[in-house]
Formats: sequence, structure tokens, C-alpha cells
Amino acid sequence: MALMKSWVASANSEESGFPLNNLPYGVFAHAGGSAHCGVAIGDQILDLTALEAASQLGLFDTRLFDRGGWNAFMAEGPEAWAKLRRWLIGALGENSPIQALLEPYMVAQSAVTMQLPFQISEFTDFYAGRHHAENVGTMFRGPENALPPNWLNMPIGYNGRASSVVVSGTPVRRPWGQVKPADADAPILAPSRRFDFELEIGAIVGQPSSGPVTVAEADRMIFGYVLLNDWSARDIQAWEYQPLGPFQAKATATSISPWIVTRAALEPFRAPTPPREGPLLPYLQEPGPMLYDIDLEVALRPEGKGETTIARTNMRALYYSPAQQLAHHTLSGCPMRVGDLLGTGTISGPERESRGSMLELSWGGKEPLTLPESGEVRSFLEDGDTVTLKGAARGAGYRIGFGECSGTLMPASPAAS
Amino acid sequence: MALMKSWVASANSEESGFPLNNLPYGVFAHAGGSAHCGVAIGDQILDLTALEAASQLGLFDTRLFDRGGWNAFMAEGPEAWAKLRRWLIGALGENSPIQALLEPYMVAQSAVTMQLPFQISEFTDFYAGRHHAENVGTMFRGPENALPPNWLNMPIGYNGRASSVVVSGTPVRRPWGQVKPADADAPILAPSRRFDFELEIGAIVGQPSSGPVTVAEADRMIFGYVLLNDWSARDIQAWEYQPLGPFQAKATATSISPWIVTRAALEPFRAPTPPREGPLLPYLQEPGPMLYDIDLEVALRPEGKGETTIARTNMRALYYSPAQQLAHHTLSGCPMRVGDLLGTGTISGPERESRGSMLELSWGGKEPLTLPESGEVRSFLEDGDTVTLKGAARGAGYRIGFGECSGTLMPASPAAS
Repeated sequence: MALMKSWVASANSEESGFPLNNLPYGVFAHAGGSAHCGVAIGDQILDLTALEAASQLGLFDTRLFDRGGWNAFMAEGPEAWAKLRRWLIGALGENSPIQALLEPYMVAQSAVTMQLPFQISEFTDFYAGRHHAENVGTMFRGPENALPPNWLNMPIGYNGRASSVVVSGTPVRRPWGQVKPADADAPILAPSRRFDFELEIGAIVGQPSSGPVTVAEADRMIFGYVLLNDWSARDIQAWEYQPLGPFQAKATATSISPWIVTRAALEPFRAPTPPREGPLLPYLQEPGPMLYDIDLEVALRPEGKGETTIARTNMRALYYSPAQQLAHHTLSGCPMRVGDLLGTGTISGPERESRGSMLELSWGGKEPLTLPESGEVRSFLEDGDTVTLKGAARGAGYRIGFGECSGTLMPASPAAS
Repeated sequence: MALMKSWVASANSEESGFPLNNLPYGVFAHAGGSAHCGVAIGDQILDLTALEAASQLGLFDTRLFDRGGWNAFMAEGPEAWAKLRRWLIGALGENSPIQALLEPYMVAQSAVTMQLPFQISEFTDFYAGRHHAENVGTMFRGPENALPPNWLNMPIGYNGRASSVVVSGTPVRRPWGQVKPADADAPILAPSRRFDFELEIGAIVGQPSSGPVTVAEADRMIFGYVLLNDWSARDIQAWEYQPLGPFQAKATATSISPWIVTRAALEPFRAPTPPREGPLLPYLQEPGPMLYDIDLEVALRPEGKGETTIARTNMRALYYSPAQQLAHHTLSGCPMRVGDLLGTGTISGPERESRGSMLELSWGGKEPLTLPESGEVRSFLEDGDTVTLKGAARGAGYRIGFGECSGTLMPASPAAS
């Protein structure tokens, strides 16, 4: 597929992550203003909320964009999703008959603040990256027990905390927690010293289910994808996670990028999961390629200094696709709802430079990273560090960009409570 | 404290769980009708939604009872909670000046169906029962590793699935899942054969928080309590739970009783947690008694047969109170929201007859239970079994009843998907 041209000139540059081929959905606000639904095109946003309020949209019977989030539109289902995308491609394309009508509804991205693009119903985090699971397992349980016996048979996941999901740009405060020093008899209450990021992709559930669904059905339930940083306190996690899994270690914050890149925009970039290392039960077998060829990277910028790209990987390093994760999620009859968010788990590749967390990059602190652009050395994150995830699928002469997922680590509060 | 008399005669009987001292909050509907907020008194319900709609309530500036749930009222905060309770005690008391005005707004409980009393924001399940943790740990990991090293230092918990919470009376379908037979090399897909209940109490968060809160603050954030049955597929759990905790094993359903018993109604029944077996960090220390003296029991009724009470215990068997659980939940900065539901974990006492799950009662199936009233024998639940949790705090001449939390197990679907 080639670049589709828009009358918004900035969308036609190969550097833009938001060409007409992409059309990601977000929520923005002017300073002091209310939350509007919009579509990114080049460096602009088409204000769908204003368009709808002025009765200039006319695609749907009821108002869908007046609630500060994309949930109501997602709930309309795949036909509505296709209808809006078709309309947008015509309306924003280079020969649009309604360019003049739309121009008053264009807003510069630089003039507004992005908010969470949808109301998150519940958040589930998986553990579907083969290299990440093996790396972390080796550090936590030794190389013999690195990969749990169930891992090659199912996408392991746990329920996270939707209330802690924040949009890119939101500062994150270093948490206090119970940690147990190796040489102590009892735990202490302290700010986390091993605070980390996790490079993930989040899948957004756009249609509900009330019983088990197939992988093919799960794929069709997914509305789109975002970048996701599941901030993690490794020292809190190590002490708390047995036997019921991570809890407060993952509850401080999870950051997501503000633009929902739709499944439709990613269709040309579908890619298969890696070869299976063992047979999967039929309910987890994929009818076609369910991953996407999305280049991912992580940049770290110490306060007031230069940014270093510390990891480069690709979504194809996942062993299980989001569609497989979602199918497994429903196996027990667990109802899924519009607005559920599923994190893939950390996406690490096989090389050191492709590891998606500080824990792996510094091998638990034993091999600290040097950051050439700032002259700093890091094992885990320091106060003031800004972590930025970036992602894009690359077509011929264009990119499907995810924008950025960024957050700055603030010092811990003086006392826990 | 003694019985407070009501002009609703059925509320004054010692057998009623809903005297004027209680006044629990629920949501009900007539067949085909909309959801109304109501207050239980004896065998009646005062219809607050209708009262408010007729401008006969006049306590609050805005409408709070027209949304089919108690969330909006909870969000108003402790002063509003106290104001409504004061008004209700006067209005429903034996010398009420407005009895005649209220009589048209009384509905027989037998004439309506109960619904979920509030919209559940997120559901967290703890593991705060000492005997349960030790029993399960012994069966899953052996007696040497029964109690994890962190257990006496913090209330261990995991995030559950709010979408699967259902109101008492909702049938529960036996789930399919991945299970690994002990003698097999690979897991199979099968209906759970070790499906179980868990006797718990659920605490309802009625006020939000955005940073760590103290145990005293956590206690004041709790609006009320319900009975909670965290249905559990033990065979699915055993295979999936390492390393990130239970997931699909707990996602089929969690049942709650329909009436929120308020913290105010339970004040006379406060009780201390058991003696500490080791020191707690200051953030977990209780400023006063934070448990309640609530008698609990579990009844099992095979389809078409008699009911047997299979367990009797008390909330005082918990090692950590819901207020301690909530304080721990916020330690990392995790935001809490109005409508969050916190399960205590299974409440088992020290004796066999006080164990709050089939797993413990039948010791993993090794000591099947005989049910005298039906002549049946059980290790785990069979299709058609109805499990009913009951609870009450007992005062002088009155009971603060929780009503029932009941569910019937339906056979698994013919195929998973």
C-alpha cells in the first residue's frame, strides 16, 4: 500500500506519523476547555465533537462524540467503525469536496492538551513476550525455572488497575512500598529503589462478549492499539508477588499514548507470531497473522540532559497476539466490556539492545547502562528521568505512527502517609 | 444497643434481619420496570427513587437516586451518609410524623427482584484469613511453605474482575479452562472439575483517594459491606497461577448479596483483629477495632434436595481488616474510586466446621463431606448445587442481617467456543 494524500499538507510528509492512511482517534482540550473527540491528520486534529454539535457530521443517528471519550462510538460496532473511516478518508483526502467546510474544524495539535482517549473499563496485563518472560524468570527464579511450565501453553496474564492508567505526559511519582532488603529479617517501608518502565502495546476492546470467543472473534472485537508503559517497582514486586501476583508494584501508574491507532489502519502490517515451540490447544490457534510489524523504541532523558535511545524492538517479538490474549481472557466466561484495555506484556527481542525494561537492560542492576548523550549511568530509573516510548509501522513512503508515550519520574513524597 | 422500633411491624421481630437499626441500601425492580434505589425495613422496601421523583425527599440539592445504583449517593460523602440515615431513622421509626406520607412508597420485598446495588468500579480480592491461607498453602505448597514469608507483614491481594460480579440469585455456569491432569504431559481444555465457593465479606469504597491513606482514613472511606462468594475453579487455578496469580480461575463470577449494610449500622459490633503474630509496619497498625462481630454461614443444597449448613464462622477470624486492606491498597499511590469493591478473602476459622471453601472442607477432595439433609456426598460442587452465604451481627433482641448471597451452579456449555 502507498501513501494516500490529504489536503492537509503536513500529513503527506514521510516523517509524519499521521498520514491519511492512519487517522488515529484521540481526545483533546484547549486550556480550560472541555474534552473533544478528534482525529489526527498531519500536525492537525479534525474536531469531531464540534462537527457533530454543528450537525455537519450526519453519519450516525445519535450523538456519539459529546462524552469526552471514544467509548460510545466503539460500542456502535464494526459497521460504524468502517463507516467513519470511509467518510474520513474521503473528507480529508486530497480531492475532498468538503475541504472548505472542514477547515474551520481543524485544530493544531500544538495548541491543545491530549487526554485519555477512552474511559478504561478494566485493565489486564499479559506476559506474552518470550524473551522478557525468560529474562525476568531467570533473574527471579534462576535459569532452570525461568519459563513457568504453563507459559508455552497459554498467555499468562493478571488483572491490573484501570484507575491508575494515565495519558502520556502525566508525571509519575516514585511510590513507597514494602520492600525486604536481602540482609534484613523484616520488611521496611521505603520509596522504591528499583523503579522501572515496561515497553508494551495496549489493545482496546471495542465490543463486548459474554462467553468464550474464538481468536478470530477476538481479533474483530479489538478496536485499536496504543503504546503502553506499565511502570513497575521491582523491589516491591519481588517481596509481594508470591503467591497471588503483582499488586502494588504495578498500581502506581500505567501510561498510554493518546492516539488510538485503529486495527483498520494496521491491516497492511499484519504479521504472524513466531514459530510455536509446542502445540497450542485449538482455542488458541490463530486463523491468520494476528501480530503487526510495528517498530518500537524506548528513549531515556535524564532531567535537563540529552535523550538516549536505550532499546529498539518490534511487536513481532511477542509469542502470543492480543487476539490470542483476548480469547484466553474469555475462556472461563469472563465478560469483556467496551473500553477494556489489554497490555501485551513487555516486548523484548533476543538481543540486549532490544530489551524492553531496565530490569533486563541492566540485568537486575548488575550491568548498568551508560547513556552517551547525557554521560549518565543507569541501573533503574532516577528521579527526573523521562521515559518515552515510540512506535510506527513503516509502509512505502509513509508511516503509521503511534505518537509518543512519555512520563517523567517525580521524587517520592516525603512520607508515605 | 437495643432494638429500635419501626412502624413497619415486620421490622420489630427478632427474626428480621432488617430492623430500624440496620436500614441497608439496595436496588430493586418490578418485573419489566426500571431500577430503583431502596432501603430495606422488615419485609418491606422504602422506594427512595419514587420518593425523590415526587419531591418528597428534599434532603439533597440534586437528584441522587435516579441512576439505578448507590454510587452517586456514596460520592456525596460521610455528611450525606449520616444525614440520610438520621432522616430514615426518624421517618421509619415508630413515632414517625410522616408515616402516612411514606406508606404509598413502601414495596414488598417479595414483589420485586434485586439487582446489583452499585456500579462496581474495580474489584480487588484479598487473602486476609489466617486459617484459609494456611490451609490452602499447605495443600498447594506443602506445610513447610504454607504461609508465604510476606503474609504476616501485609494483606496480600490481587486485582479481580469487576465485570464478573453478579447479584445474589444469578446462576453461575461451570467454566471451561486449561487444566493439567497430574499424569499428563500437556494441559487439556475441559470443564472445571474442582469448582468451589469462597465465603467472604466485600467492603465497598464510598470515597475516592489519590495517594496513600492511613488505616483510620481507610475506615472512613468504607461505605458498607456485603456478603461475597468468590467462585473459584481450583483445577484451573493450580495450573495457571504461577507466576502472576489467579486469572481465569476467578473470572467466571463473583456473587454479592443485594443489600449494602452500612458501616454506621455495624458500629456497635466493632471487634479487634486477632493478636499479631509479629509486628506490623506503622502504616498497617489499627487505631481501634476495625473488624466486626458478624456470624457467617454457608449452606449447600443439591438440586431438588434439602439444604445442609456446611460451615459456620465469624468475620473476627480475619487477620487483616478491610480498613487495613484498603490502606495497603493505596500505599503505592493507586487511586481508589467510589464503587471499588474489596473482598476480604475466604474467612475460615480454626475448626473443620468453620472452613469457608469446599477445598478446605473436603481437604482437596481427600475427605469428602456428607450432607445429612440430602444424603449426598461432596468434594467440590456438582451441577445444580445451590450455595447460600448468610450473615448477621447479633444485638440484644435484634439482628443486623446481610440477607443472603446465593447462586446455583449450571452445567458447563457443550463446548468452550
